[in-house]
Amino acid sequence: MALKSGFCELGFAKVDIDRQRRRGFAEAVYCPGKTKEHLKKISGELIKNKQDLLLTRLDKFAFAYLKKSFPGLKYHPLAKLGYLVKKSRAAKKGLVLVVCAGTADIPVAEEAAVTLEVMGGRVEKLYDVGVAGVHRLMSNMDVIRKAKVIIVVAGMEGALASLVSGLVSSPVIAVPTSCGYGANFAGLAALLTMLNSCSPGVAVVNIDNGFGAGYFASIINR
Amino acid sequence: MALKSGFCELGFAKVDIDRQRRRGFAEAVYCPGKTKEHLKKISGELIKNKQDLLLTRLDKFAFAYLKKSFPGLKYHPLAKLGYLVKKSRAAKKGLVLVVCAGTADIPVAEEAAVTLEVMGGRVEKLYDVGVAGVHRLMSNMDVIRKAKVIIVVAGMEGALASLVSGLVSSPVIAVPTSCGYGANFAGLAALLTMLNSCSPGVAVVNIDNGFGAGYFASIINR
Amino acid sequence: MALKSGFCELGFAKVDIDRQRRRGFAEAVYCPGKTKEHLKKISGELIKNKQDLLLTRLDKFAFAYLKKSFPGLKYHPLAKLGYLVKKSRAAKKGLVLVVCAGTADIPVAEEAAVTLEVMGGRVEKLYDVGVAGVHRLMSNMDVIRKAKVIIVVAGMEGALASLVSGLVSSPVIAVPTSCGYGANFAGLAALLTMLNSCSPGVAVVNIDNGFGAGYFASIINR
Amino acid sequence: MALKSGFCELGFAKVDIDRQRRRGFAEAVYCPGKTKEHLKKISGELIKNKQDLLLTRLDKFAFAYLKKSFPGLKYHPLAKLGYLVKKSRAAKKGLVLVVCAGTADIPVAEEAAVTLEVMGGRVEKLYDVGVAGVHRLMSNMDVIRKAKVIIVVAGMEGALASLVSGLVSSPVIAVPTSCGYGANFAGLAALLTMLNSCSPGVAVVNIDNGFGAGYFASIINR
Amino acid sequence: MALKSGFCELGFAKVDIDRQRRRGFAEAVYCPGKTKEHLKKISGELIKNKQDLLLTRLDKFAFAYLKKSFPGLKYHPLAKLGYLVKKSRAAKKGLVLVVCAGTADIPVAEEAAVTLEVMGGRVEKLYDVGVAGVHRLMSNMDVIRKAKVIIVVAGMEGALASLVSGLVSSPVIAVPTSCGYGANFAGLAALLTMLNSCSPGVAVVNIDNGFGAGYFASIINR
Amino acid sequence: MALKSGFCELGFAKVDIDRQRRRGFAEAVYCPGKTKEHLKKISGELIKNKQDLLLTRLDKFAFAYLKKSFPGLKYHPLAKLGYLVKKSRAAKKGLVLVVCAGTADIPVAEEAAVTLEVMGGRVEKLYDVGVAGVHRLMSNMDVIRKAKVIIVVAGMEGALASLVSGLVSSPVIAVPTSCGYGANFAGLAALLTMLNSCSPGVAVVNIDNGFGAGYFASIINR
Amino acid sequence: MALKSGFCELGFAKVDIDRQRRRGFAEAVYCPGKTKEHLKKISGELIKNKQDLLLTRLDKFAFAYLKKSFPGLKYHPLAKLGYLVKKSRAAKKGLVLVVCAGTADIPVAEEAAVTLEVMGGRVEKLYDVGVAGVHRLMSNMDVIRKAKVIIVVAGMEGALASLVSGLVSSPVIAVPTSCGYGANFAGLAALLTMLNSCSPGVAVVNIDNGFGAGYFASIINR
Amino acid sequence: MALKSGFCELGFAKVDIDRQRRRGFAEAVYCPGKTKEHLKKISGELIKNKQDLLLTRLDKFAFAYLKKSFPGLKYHPLAKLGYLVKKSRAAKKGLVLVVCAGTADIPVAEEAAVTLEVMGGRVEKLYDVGVAGVHRLMSNMDVIRKAKVIIVVAGMEGALASLVSGLVSSPVIAVPTSCGYGANFAGLAALLTMLNSCSPGVAVVNIDNGFGAGYFASIINR
Repeated sequence: MALKSGFCELGFAKVDIDRQRRRGFAEAVYCPGKTKEHLKKISGELIKNKQDLLLTRLDKFAFAYLKKSFPGLKYHPLAKLGYLVKKSRAAKKGLVLVVCAGTADIPVAEEAAVTLEVMGGRVEKLYDVGVAGVHRLMSNMDVIRKAKVIIVVAGMEGALASLVSGLVSSPVIAVPTSCGYGANFAGLAALLTMLNSCSPGVAVVNIDNGFGAGYFASIINR
Repeated sequence: MALKSGFCELGFAKVDIDRQRRRGFAEAVYCPGKTKEHLKKISGELIKNKQDLLLTRLDKFAFAYLKKSFPGLKYHPLAKLGYLVKKSRAAKKGLVLVVCAGTADIPVAEEAAVTLEVMGGRVEKLYDVGVAGVHRLMSNMDVIRKAKVIIVVAGMEGALASLVSGLVSSPVIAVPTSCGYGANFAGLAALLTMLNSCSPGVAVVNIDNGFGAGYFASIINR
Repeated sequence: MALKSGFCELGFAKVDIDRQRRRGFAEAVYCPGKTKEHLKKISGELIKNKQDLLLTRLDKFAFAYLKKSFPGLKYHPLAKLGYLVKKSRAAKKGLVLVVCAGTADIPVAEEAAVTLEVMGGRVEKLYDVGVAGVHRLMSNMDVIRKAKVIIVVAGMEGALASLVSGLVSSPVIAVPTSCGYGANFAGLAALLTMLNSCSPGVAVVNIDNGFGAGYFASIINR
Repeated sequence: MALKSGFCELGFAKVDIDRQRRRGFAEAVYCPGKTKEHLKKISGELIKNKQDLLLTRLDKFAFAYLKKSFPGLKYHPLAKLGYLVKKSRAAKKGLVLVVCAGTADIPVAEEAAVTLEVMGGRVEKLYDVGVAGVHRLMSNMDVIRKAKVIIVVAGMEGALASLVSGLVSSPVIAVPTSCGYGANFAGLAALLTMLNSCSPGVAVVNIDNGFGAGYFASIINR
Repeated sequence: MALKSGFCELGFAKVDIDRQRRRGFAEAVYCPGKTKEHLKKISGELIKNKQDLLLTRLDKFAFAYLKKSFPGLKYHPLAKLGYLVKKSRAAKKGLVLVVCAGTADIPVAEEAAVTLEVMGGRVEKLYDVGVAGVHRLMSNMDVIRKAKVIIVVAGMEGALASLVSGLVSSPVIAVPTSCGYGANFAGLAALLTMLNSCSPGVAVVNIDNGFGAGYFASIINR
Repeated sequence: MALKSGFCELGFAKVDIDRQRRRGFAEAVYCPGKTKEHLKKISGELIKNKQDLLLTRLDKFAFAYLKKSFPGLKYHPLAKLGYLVKKSRAAKKGLVLVVCAGTADIPVAEEAAVTLEVMGGRVEKLYDVGVAGVHRLMSNMDVIRKAKVIIVVAGMEGALASLVSGLVSSPVIAVPTSCGYGANFAGLAALLTMLNSCSPGVAVVNIDNGFGAGYFASIINR
Repeated sequence: MALKSGFCELGFAKVDIDRQRRRGFAEAVYCPGKTKEHLKKISGELIKNKQDLLLTRLDKFAFAYLKKSFPGLKYHPLAKLGYLVKKSRAAKKGLVLVVCAGTADIPVAEEAAVTLEVMGGRVEKLYDVGVAGVHRLMSNMDVIRKAKVIIVVAGMEGALASLVSGLVSSPVIAVPTSCGYGANFAGLAALLTMLNSCSPGVAVVNIDNGFGAGYFASIINR
Repeated sequence: MALKSGFCELGFAKVDIDRQRRRGFAEAVYCPGKTKEHLKKISGELIKNKQDLLLTRLDKFAFAYLKKSFPGLKYHPLAKLGYLVKKSRAAKKGLVLVVCAGTADIPVAEEAAVTLEVMGGRVEKLYDVGVAGVHRLMSNMDVIRKAKVIIVVAGMEGALASLVSGLVSSPVIAVPTSCGYGANFAGLAALLTMLNSCSPGVAVVNIDNGFGAGYFASIINR
């Protein structure tokens, strides 16, 4: 395996072993479309170069395959995340709250929460507080107000992000999910809702991108 | 002018003079794309046949032209509605509340409110209670709860309709507006939001269709 | 299970046990994306708190699982609705008519009809009266005229909603379905048709949302 | 001006003077985006080569300019058609009926009707028979049934095409118009409606394409 | 089974037995979304009332089921059409040519061709003459010119319809297909191409709607 | 003017005078769709209640009108922002860098920068560093690396956000602009680019929403 | 004006004076959204640094303003290109043919042709050869075959690109234009057509991007 | 099998045996939607007429079937290409570089590379150099600069094409891939990015169209 400055040349991949130094966290590996052999080689290279390992959208079969080579690898089946973080990190100072609108949004919310934990953050969760029963949200204003950063995960109409944002001074990272049907158009409805928030203080990541929200929350929580 | 059963033949138009009997309210005339001479002939025919007259999206110039022929014609410039309702109606029994999210949504909200009044309803208004400052809505729960029907008018992300619906047992008629910019796509964002409401009890009309909301509210308020 | 004011805290869910008091009907549970264990816990909580139980888009396998714990649970396989309504309700006063355009729209129409029945309404059905053979509709003007509320379910071009609305004084709740192919774009064509109805008195719910139409019809039929 | 086989080379244009022989009618000139000088040269070339002249979407200023050079040029301002048809044609045998849903659709309907007349057809018109008052259509079943070809022009939800088609054995050429607002999306709603007609016997042309409908009707009316 | 004027009431369906008299051809049955029992009852009713039977998008399993009850039923597997036409028809006078761009478009082309034959037309076929090798089309100008009506079936960019139309005086019915990938967007590309034909004389049916094209061609070929 | 808890009731508006306490910054007033009289009343109410004043998308005519009543009002014509901030704020600790891809994106970038300054931040600007000449970006790695937060403003293909994010450990707030033409679809292209960033650490606001980006940057820079 | 390596720092712009060396042609300046003062400064800087000057989408007013400072500046009003190319270039070896479908596409075609000439290429033009009269194209096979590169500019359905490509061995650069109406959706139809070409050998640039096509043709013509 | 000038008539297909002479390379066969028997007949005809054989999107089962009849047929499983090129070609003079952004884009990149090799080109590959770690690209400037043509394959946001183009004087052929999720919309995001490249010198092919890119690169590399 050729070594060039800052990355390892595997031919089919150029593993970015400079990422942890440059960006504060190692290259996360997006698993769909990669064979399990490719995943093994990339993971091995990252581990060898003392990078943290975070595998996103990893299915359980590929995890089982990788586990044989990397016994320390952990897996969160709902979040579909595999990870192997070698040394403990100093805890981030602020609390990140992961809020979701409905039970069906939990896998995406968990992807955000696990990402945060892997990156060293303190996380609390507030699930199933969609606007159809807003007293569930209002009863939890204490934890909402004490969070330094809030991730709001919602499908269907995605109204929760604006609402939460209007209640607090903290930044809200909005994650639209593809949960819903019909004119939801696989998450488009929630995405547009969140982008058009009448309440400032909301920024948006891709549909179902719990990892991206967790990552972003982690780097603003310093 | 030829008279056929239930309508007047004007050649360029067939004025439906059976509408009031059949549907409970006369044919409302959608003005865009009609010349002022056409509007005058259609209006004259409706009046002659003892139908109420309601002209939607009427601009002030066409109104001034029509006013000369029909001195009793009234006009609401913000709602762009002209109307001439000949006999007083028995008031509808319930209260209809017209709620809007922001000041820029008022023209559409007024179109709904004036339509309701012309059709004989009792209307109250609650304007500028968007989710960016939800206490403005929560401080008005009394009027929200006493309404028999609620019209929610909102642009940008349109989150208000779901939220209001979740608080009450009354039906919510949601009107998306084209107020906003960018990924609002001229009202598409608010439209999709409202169609995907996680709170049941919401039905939706076309973007900026205050008239349609007022009409629908009127016929369910019996 | 923690109990907060108005909801039960299950961690993964906050069951809204205030819904029946606040909104007149209990929280309906949208099943896709929830595990069968989750459904069981949520259902159990609702039953324990004397809420009616309505499970939407419930597949037959999850029903069979739930049936073991809740022997009184009923299931309508075409409508994919599970329900357990504990005490009889006073019948709503008006008749709701569920109209559908074609045989392939029946599952959505049934979802509306069963929802109405569960919520205590009187329902009649008029199926397969699409505009390709309009005499089928015209031969049934008696039942159409006597309905207090009409639900129109149609896929393909969805023209039936405007047509029915133009014949009556009752409100029409339009449900576009995803039945069709090609430029139907999974229900988008029928949705746009219904939103643009030239006949006022039509309000629209999400594509394939029979439950939402039934719910809305029920609350305006008081 | 160079002459090649079947067309005249003007540099900026290659006027197809073989069109009348090959296709039965001369090249119609689409005017938008062409300067008035270009229109003059193209028109002159067509006239010189004994082709019929039909100018579509011609504005009144360009018409006034062309009229000076071609005194025989006629103009229909609503249809925005200029034409100079040199010799009379044998009348087509069947009747073509141009139906439109609302008064605002008349310009497109007239474009179809004038095109038909210029091409030698017999035309009748039935305007303002939209589905909001279907008795206006049903009162005219005699003329609808006697037509050999029917053009249906409709904006908003465009439901009229399916309905008319379901009543007759004649072909229906459907023309969606951009008349409407909001979720009409400049004619997209009516276009999709017509493409998804549940009634067979409908074919569709471009939004606002009255000329195309008239042309197609003319060539199937032989 | 209740009998009303012009249709048979089956509860789940209202079979239009007036269609053949009114429109010249019986109700074609669109099979997706109907159970095989429903198909059997509808088919039986049509046969009993001496209507021709044409079943579109019928899969082979449902055909096998129906065949047991209706031994005369025929099936074309590529076109997915089942049919049972009881008495011979006088042949239509003109020739209809079905043209397709590529081999992958043949199922849709066959659906058009079989529909035409079932409805009594003379059909010829010209397959695989897409614009990538235009000499294949140009070598067949004799059959193209002698057709009274031409159906052009094309996926991918769908350019063939405009091209064929520019060569002839006959009407072209364009059928976009979903054949292609990527920015084809399941037939949208070909659909838009055909709607925007710079050559007049083209009308369009829904994506993959071979039946609709065949039907339309049949009724203009009289 | 009625005073309710936390807002002032103006009838057409409910001015949120609790916003500064609750969220750390006063209600920003979105000006489009509001009359200048409305703007004056809202502004007056905010000033009277000791809230900072920030008017977004304010045109110069409305500014001139307001200036007469509020002499202290300042205006940035490129950013279209009016503001009147009464007491000086403690400077935020980190540096925010506003980067834009091309000169045509400057108005949106300025809207972000002025918002940041009004909210008390330290701002630097790096303009015209689009990927067509990446050395312009690479020559400025020092300022890019020292920023605590980076706002990237880009139209056309919007590639700059991913690229910048890949170079740093700071969060990137991406603002797509409507600068471009054709398949840019008024900013949709850049919006989708930014939402799909292969580099984590990017969150997105609405098209042309410089204010939203500045606001978000300000609240994460604490 | 600060000078960094390879570009000039103007604050609002960073003029890329390394472009000619690096890419073979200087930075072309996209004018919309830039003030005329900005254009003057950028142009002056490019000239001072001996870069060729090419200004795209320059309107005539800005040209008149710039002409005062740069008397050598030339302008092509139809193509909206300003240019000042200081030294003559060796002619490129191959011939580039610019083909357009209709007269209304000429401005975009001219933008491509002038760009090619400014960059030193040999250009011929073949205008108005759309598929509605394909003999106009077929009569010009000699020039089509002798071209080394072909640019095809077409609006409406954009079918010409596939057709031309199928006839030759040369590469075809396809430029969709926004010429058309209705379901053309401002060039989307032609864009999709060209992207889905069934004939390989076609690559596509943005809608109306004559400059981009000319540029690409120039760099492959070496 | 009938033989007409330049193609073989198989009924279901017209094999273009003039293609190699006319265009420099034989007809490539797009396999989806064709039966394996059809593929065998078409392939046999091409071989018999001494045309090169290239089968795109060929699945492994159809390959195995064809291999029995054509033992010389080769297959590349990742690129899904089958090919049988009978005589060696003179190598093209320039080097074509195939660049891809991520490992998941490799199948499309390989389709381009194998197409190039089959057509006689010299190819090098540079994989996994996406903008999230731009040093991987910058470390390879030597190979990037020496390429005569560059193909850039990228999914997600597709930013790589603009970036590479800005570094070189060579043409860039951009291939968007459907790799990604959510607002990627199956490749639409990358497609729009590439069409809107701020860097001139980029032309685009259809989503996932590696074959088209390879073909285009081959014909400009002469």
